[in-house]
Amino acid sequence: MKRKVFFLSDSTGMTAENLGRSLLAQFPQISFESVTKPFIDTSAKAEKIAAQINQEAQSSSERPIVVDTIVNTDASQIIKATDCFYIDVFSTFLAPLEQELGVKSAHTVGHHHIFEEESRAVDQAYVQRIEAVHFALANDDGMHLHRYSEADIILIGVSRTGKTPSSVYLGMQFGIKAANYPLIPDDLELNRLPDALADHQRKLFGLTIRPARLSEIRNERKPNSTYASLRNCVEEIKLAEKLYRQCRIPYIDTTQLSIEEIAARMLQRAGIERRVSSL
Amino acid sequence: MKRKVFFLSDSTGMTAENLGRSLLAQFPQISFESVTKPFIDTSAKAEKIAAQINQEAQSSSERPIVVDTIVNTDASQIIKATDCFYIDVFSTFLAPLEQELGVKSAHTVGHHHIFEEESRAVDQAYVQRIEAVHFALANDDGMHLHRYSEADIILIGVSRTGKTPSSVYLGMQFGIKAANYPLIPDDLELNRLPDALADHQRKLFGLTIRPARLSEIRNERKPNSTYASLRNCVEEIKLAEKLYRQCRIPYIDTTQLSIEEIAARMLQRAGIERRVSSL
Repeated sequence: MKRKVFFLSDSTGMTAENLGRSLLAQFPQISFESVTKPFIDTSAKAEKIAAQINQEAQSSSERPIVVDTIVNTDASQIIKATDCFYIDVFSTFLAPLEQELGVKSAHTVGHHHIFEEESRAVDQAYVQRIEAVHFALANDDGMHLHRYSEADIILIGVSRTGKTPSSVYLGMQFGIKAANYPLIPDDLELNRLPDALADHQRKLFGLTIRPARLSEIRNERKPNSTYASLRNCVEEIKLAEKLYRQCRIPYIDTTQLSIEEIAARMLQRAGIERRVSSL
Repeated sequence: MKRKVFFLSDSTGMTAENLGRSLLAQFPQISFESVTKPFIDTSAKAEKIAAQINQEAQSSSERPIVVDTIVNTDASQIIKATDCFYIDVFSTFLAPLEQELGVKSAHTVGHHHIFEEESRAVDQAYVQRIEAVHFALANDDGMHLHRYSEADIILIGVSRTGKTPSSVYLGMQFGIKAANYPLIPDDLELNRLPDALADHQRKLFGLTIRPARLSEIRNERKPNSTYASLRNCVEEIKLAEKLYRQCRIPYIDTTQLSIEEIAARMLQRAGIERRVSSL
């Protein structure tokens, strides 16, 4: 039977999910089943969730685990009183932080729109992220070659190595303008950089993947095609990696990585700073 | 002077950033300057970061704040010995969790690819997210109307209310297939749902925004156009909101919200479950 976990928040729930999953991942021998409850910002909503937690505790042999990131103290107290293993993220760290910083914490819900200045910063980050996502979409798959001069980074790779999701993620999460260019077989045969890319060599970042995995992914899209055949995938990857080495383009193997890991490693390798907060 | 903050991780750094920013947001009266250091997975790398932290402490009147999410105990010890205010996320919560669960934690780096079963789960989540992102892109701005039957949710709204970034984010973060359809002036004059949408009423979710904000955003794109004029924005928003109410379509005002908040509120209002873990 799976151990039940509640991720609670008075905001989106992302912090509770991220932290909670990182902690639980340290216990791979146990199966967990999690549910996220965002926007618990009143005592009434907390009472409703508390009833669910208690019901879960009654119907199971083990009490549920609760990761609580609710800032509102009244709501948190209601959750804390339930029959659960309770992880109180804010209380744990805020008290020592208050002492270190010498001021009291706001203990307000979330952190948006409290101060006008802060609100403007959120606005700017929002606009920057939206623009970067639109940039990624408009510069996907080698369209609009002329906007490469605006790009912070240009991802290259053969079809289905993860260029599009990676470039959208870089825009969404970090406000980074990422274009991408697919290396088609004609490009690979050139044995040098395609003309469209030659002027932007320093912005290029290569993606590669294990041929067997690439073949699997392509087979889902076009079953039994030459395009998806292992032999073709081996050949395309060989030529792409040769090009990366020859032109000293940094590159990354995406086979075993999540989108977050691909993006974080790229920024680190390319020496690009994360531009905007995602929160 | 800004108080320096280090977000440290042996993985992507997202957990340290999310948690750290949530905590520091509770102190709006203090200015922080943060830097994220991901992939600190050896003692040698930890030594390098430790030197940076100590240097920062020396050159400033206040010691830096360190949010440490490194699982590797050796590396963490090196960080802990620096001159900083140290927040040790894993040690704080793992010990009580070990006791509750009755097993030792893995204390391994990150959580990917340790067990084959887990690795397959990561693969599946990756594929589902990639597919959902591609779906969002292929079904952006009213293209491919015929794929609406595949969509989990269809976002509607006038131009520049945040439909595209929201639909991409839903795919990226949650593996939700989100299409979007722009309500153009011709649609708004109909005074009923456009034909393309009428069959999918239960999947529709509306976006709205304050007209003054919409006008600002549109002015950045097409300065001094009728499209961007306040009068036109007021009119379009009025008609769109009337349509939502008339057809009982749930809707959300995106004016003051981040992309995360928009997405999380949509899922909650629409009663759609978060499909895949992002980690």
